[in-house]
Amino acid sequence: MSAIAISLGDPAGIGPEITAKAWEQRERHKLTPFFAVGDPRSIEAVWGGNVVRITDPGEAQVAFRVGLPVLQIEDAGEIIPGRPDIEGARCSLDALEVAAGIARSGAASALVTGPVSKTQLYAVGFRHPGQTEFVAERCGISPENAIMLLAGPTLKVVPMTTHMPLRDVADTLSIELIVARGIATAKGLTRNFGIAQPRLAFAGFNPHAGENGALGREEIDLLIPAMEILREQGINVAGPFAADAMFHKRARARYDVAMCLYHDQALIPLKTLHFDEGVNMTLGLPFVRTSPDHGTAFDIAGTDSAEPGAMIAALRMAASAAKHRAAAAV
Amino acid sequence: MSAIAISLGDPAGIGPEITAKAWEQRERHKLTPFFAVGDPRSIEAVWGGNVVRITDPGEAQVAFRVGLPVLQIEDAGEIIPGRPDIEGARCSLDALEVAAGIARSGAASALVTGPVSKTQLYAVGFRHPGQTEFVAERCGISPENAIMLLAGPTLKVVPMTTHMPLRDVADTLSIELIVARGIATAKGLTRNFGIAQPRLAFAGFNPHAGENGALGREEIDLLIPAMEILREQGINVAGPFAADAMFHKRARARYDVAMCLYHDQALIPLKTLHFDEGVNMTLGLPFVRTSPDHGTAFDIAGTDSAEPGAMIAALRMAASAAKHRAAAAV
Repeated sequence: MSAIAISLGDPAGIGPEITAKAWEQRERHKLTPFFAVGDPRSIEAVWGGNVVRITDPGEAQVAFRVGLPVLQIEDAGEIIPGRPDIEGARCSLDALEVAAGIARSGAASALVTGPVSKTQLYAVGFRHPGQTEFVAERCGISPENAIMLLAGPTLKVVPMTTHMPLRDVADTLSIELIVARGIATAKGLTRNFGIAQPRLAFAGFNPHAGENGALGREEIDLLIPAMEILREQGINVAGPFAADAMFHKRARARYDVAMCLYHDQALIPLKTLHFDEGVNMTLGLPFVRTSPDHGTAFDIAGTDSAEPGAMIAALRMAASAAKHRAAAAV
Repeated sequence: MSAIAISLGDPAGIGPEITAKAWEQRERHKLTPFFAVGDPRSIEAVWGGNVVRITDPGEAQVAFRVGLPVLQIEDAGEIIPGRPDIEGARCSLDALEVAAGIARSGAASALVTGPVSKTQLYAVGFRHPGQTEFVAERCGISPENAIMLLAGPTLKVVPMTTHMPLRDVADTLSIELIVARGIATAKGLTRNFGIAQPRLAFAGFNPHAGENGALGREEIDLLIPAMEILREQGINVAGPFAADAMFHKRARARYDVAMCLYHDQALIPLKTLHFDEGVNMTLGLPFVRTSPDHGTAFDIAGTDSAEPGAMIAALRMAASAAKHRAAAAV
């Protein structure tokens, strides 16, 4: 299996530091070889270890034994950890584009994206809601078919809507949307996690899942019909469940993924349980893409206090998913 | 301090069993003496221990040493655990009314309410959304001023709206409502928990707390102005925070109560963390009222498998709150 490509994210954020720290812990966590894509100076600014400049992804496997391989792209200008600027934002966008291209070509077995600053990216003309949509577009995949899965050690969630005002969610939901997300999620769990018949548990939209319509009708009008269609397609679905009773330990044992209807319904339980080890995986792409589920943390960049746990988890999940895909392709 | 009154809830539910099991564990958990209000036969149907019939709350302290004291009200008819009926629903309502009256009179130091079936209660003409509103009305307190606080060992939450369709929440929220809930909560935490200056952390309504209006305006239009008013009144408020980043361990250490805007925003984190030990406390009443935060569990009633953990937690919290109130009244 070829090495994993990591786009370093904003050079002034903690992406370079957590990538370097992940390399330091490569043996303890049995990490598949990886290489960074970005400005090597952003790593050298925060880390004293050995950075190995490479010019081709094929060099990464060998270089990985002696240092952190970095495929250099353009110069990010002056780099001051914790002080984002326009040149850094451009660099993070180029790194993402190059790393995604390498993953798509097969020269990397997977893509792991480091944290970027959306505020900074918007300032350089970025128009996508996030990295997920950008990568999807580069692969010719419509954003609706690129599904965000968030995963921690004991919970996987899919938010069926994401970054929109909560008051708009009810009218955005539709039977079609729920069915499409359900199919893509079931397929994605089989493809990336090797789960032959994934168990999808649907959260209700209203308190107590609507109490048979007394507290809202989205369960009756949308969820139950959508789940019926999914069931007819042979997908293992259960629910809709009262969302507050779905995420304790015994409940989590009963499903492989919780299908949630809005951002916080999915992210509150995930981050309550797994704040420091959450991984964001995009389902529906032609290659594996994961990301540590945290931001640039400009406030602590350069202080050597960033924890690489989520980056390590993202690397391990990417490697595992790439293996599942390779095994299925044989 | 006088004994605590427990209304047994539906006689066919697990209320009688968890009350009896709590009595069995009275020494291990150093429980303040308590007595049950309801039909003693509902306890005898599921428990072989000593039930002591009393006719006056004042007898409870002495009786508690040798058995579970029960203040008998009307006969609940035939009792079959797991088989709720109309007579049982009437009995649960009477028990609630009598126990609340005793607590209000001061003959009990606090009220703990066992689980009732709303479906059954509605069938006998009950018109309140829940026991909380019923008790508030009996005390001449408007339901808006009876605040539901849910508490587990590491988290307290107040849902500022509760049992309504999620799509109605945004239009139900107002600056006035948030300010009133904030004041009542701060007062309630001081009164019942002895926290001199409680720290209130407000959850945002939208993903990422609205990202300065990009993902919704409830933070700007409602939360921030309401918090400003609370701050002027000397209340310690913080936020609005991205709701998904508020409930992990480090975040919880920074506040005494999370002020949430809708049912599942409050209940998802609470039940994810503390499913079996959640306590519901009503703030704003003239006496202490708590309740184990679970239902009648008719499916397991009579099988001796109900866990008394939440009932024990409700009893301990009620005793502690009654002591704080008594100390403040001196």
